[in-house]
Amino acid sequence: MPQLSDEMLDALGAQPGVPLSDRATANPTWWPSDAPQSKAEGKKALAELGEQLSAYQERLFASAAVGGAKDSVLLVLQGMDTAGKGGIVRHVMGLMDPQGVEHHSFKAPTPEEQAHHFLWRIERELPARGKIGVFDRSHYEDVLIHRVKGLTSRQGIEARYQRINDFETRLQEQGIRVLKVMLHISREEQYRRLLERLENPQKNWKFTTDDVDDRLLWDDYQQAYEIAIERTHTQLNPWFIVPADQKWAARWTVAQLLLRELQRIDPQWPTASYDVAEQRARLEASQ
Amino acid sequence: MPQLSDEMLDALGAQPGVPLSDRATANPTWWPSDAPQSKAEGKKALAELGEQLSAYQERLFASAAVGGAKDSVLLVLQGMDTAGKGGIVRHVMGLMDPQGVEHHSFKAPTPEEQAHHFLWRIERELPARGKIGVFDRSHYEDVLIHRVKGLTSRQGIEARYQRINDFETRLQEQGIRVLKVMLHISREEQYRRLLERLENPQKNWKFTTDDVDDRLLWDDYQQAYEIAIERTHTQLNPWFIVPADQKWAARWTVAQLLLRELQRIDPQWPTASYDVAEQRARLEASQ
Repeated sequence: MPQLSDEMLDALGAQPGVPLSDRATANPTWWPSDAPQSKAEGKKALAELGEQLSAYQERLFASAAVGGAKDSVLLVLQGMDTAGKGGIVRHVMGLMDPQGVEHHSFKAPTPEEQAHHFLWRIERELPARGKIGVFDRSHYEDVLIHRVKGLTSRQGIEARYQRINDFETRLQEQGIRVLKVMLHISREEQYRRLLERLENPQKNWKFTTDDVDDRLLWDDYQQAYEIAIERTHTQLNPWFIVPADQKWAARWTVAQLLLRELQRIDPQWPTASYDVAEQRARLEASQ
Repeated sequence: MPQLSDEMLDALGAQPGVPLSDRATANPTWWPSDAPQSKAEGKKALAELGEQLSAYQERLFASAAVGGAKDSVLLVLQGMDTAGKGGIVRHVMGLMDPQGVEHHSFKAPTPEEQAHHFLWRIERELPARGKIGVFDRSHYEDVLIHRVKGLTSRQGIEARYQRINDFETRLQEQGIRVLKVMLHISREEQYRRLLERLENPQKNWKFTTDDVDDRLLWDDYQQAYEIAIERTHTQLNPWFIVPADQKWAARWTVAQLLLRELQRIDPQWPTASYDVAEQRARLEASQ
């Protein structure tokens, strides 16, 4: 089972100053030779990763439920429409026990949410201790679409980057490992995926007219991503930019990044808080 | 792929007047010959059922997200400690996309929950339209443990059965299909499972001293279940009592019951709310 090498981690990490258009969306030159090379290989490798993820997830859950550990993980997924965020939830998070996973998909804010600070609704959906959370979109929408559509002033957007950094620093301090992933697709791949949603009646429901509206603002969104990533890519909370034109490659990569976070936590089975021999005697007596 | 026959459904249904001790916890005489007969066969059959469940789940989600359908499903899981409720969540609900599944595990009520009506916390966790919800324990705790431990007067418990029936009738009216399952294990099987939790250090965290306390009240709990099931087993909201000494058999059975609910809803792919040809032209122009 290949693991993420330091080289691959470096290559996946955001590189301030490098425009997104210079970053691979498929078949990157740095793709490891021992990583899966095809859809079929990717699917098999992902299933194997699932076994490892499941094992870590259960230990993480147990360590918090009984052992008093405070760790959790939060996978933040961002990307253009059709980038595959939902597919990551389904095919990567879906590998683990639903009891240990908390999923939230952030849509356009409700009136109640709009009546609060932009981090209010984020706070409410943070994963509990021992859980693995996943956000399909996140607080980053408030500096992405807000910048592109001018919903917040440029000065206000600048302040929000700092609020986000402060917020994420606090999350790390309280034990939430934030794993920030941008699924990076090409404009051509988005075209193919949107076309598929229009051509396949069973996928029509996934398409909205906003998707084309936003596509027409592609360059503005890419620029908003570049700036947001540059301002919020910190040593404590780095961004990873995952080539996502090939869904199987993106899923394998994100699963590896998630596994790495879990390995860094290295949760331990908690020791019994009761006297095992004594309870065993009680149990025997109850037969 | 064998489906649930009418005979099997009848056999699974609660039968008022028949004590739980007269119902099979393993190898029931009515187990169909075309159903899986071993752990290996059960695992294979469950994976196949997963494909069907996933397909229905996505259509249910789509029908509500875009099509305006109001249907959802709520699987209510009850059973003695170690009956396998968590295993159903992991191995049956885990077959489906986490984006379409809402899981909640009810523990001893918090002070805030205790300051409300017993249905208050239940209401808050009901599945949204298009979702498949699962409750690991539920409002039934408020007539089970409350009866056994005398936390509510007998008169109060009697009133609660009616409150539950009214509540579940309303849920059906608003489109929530309630699927009530009691996982029925034998006292001997519980002994084996508790012993395993004590003997295997990696399972120690799943054991609490309460488990033996409650085991000593086995007969009281069985009686509380019998009465609760009898009072709340209605034509609209029947109870199913699933033999659960064999985990693989219980999981296959619950997956079949869930599939049946989804088939009864028969969700349809929604039709596009936009002009497909027009959007396709816009998309082409954006290339």
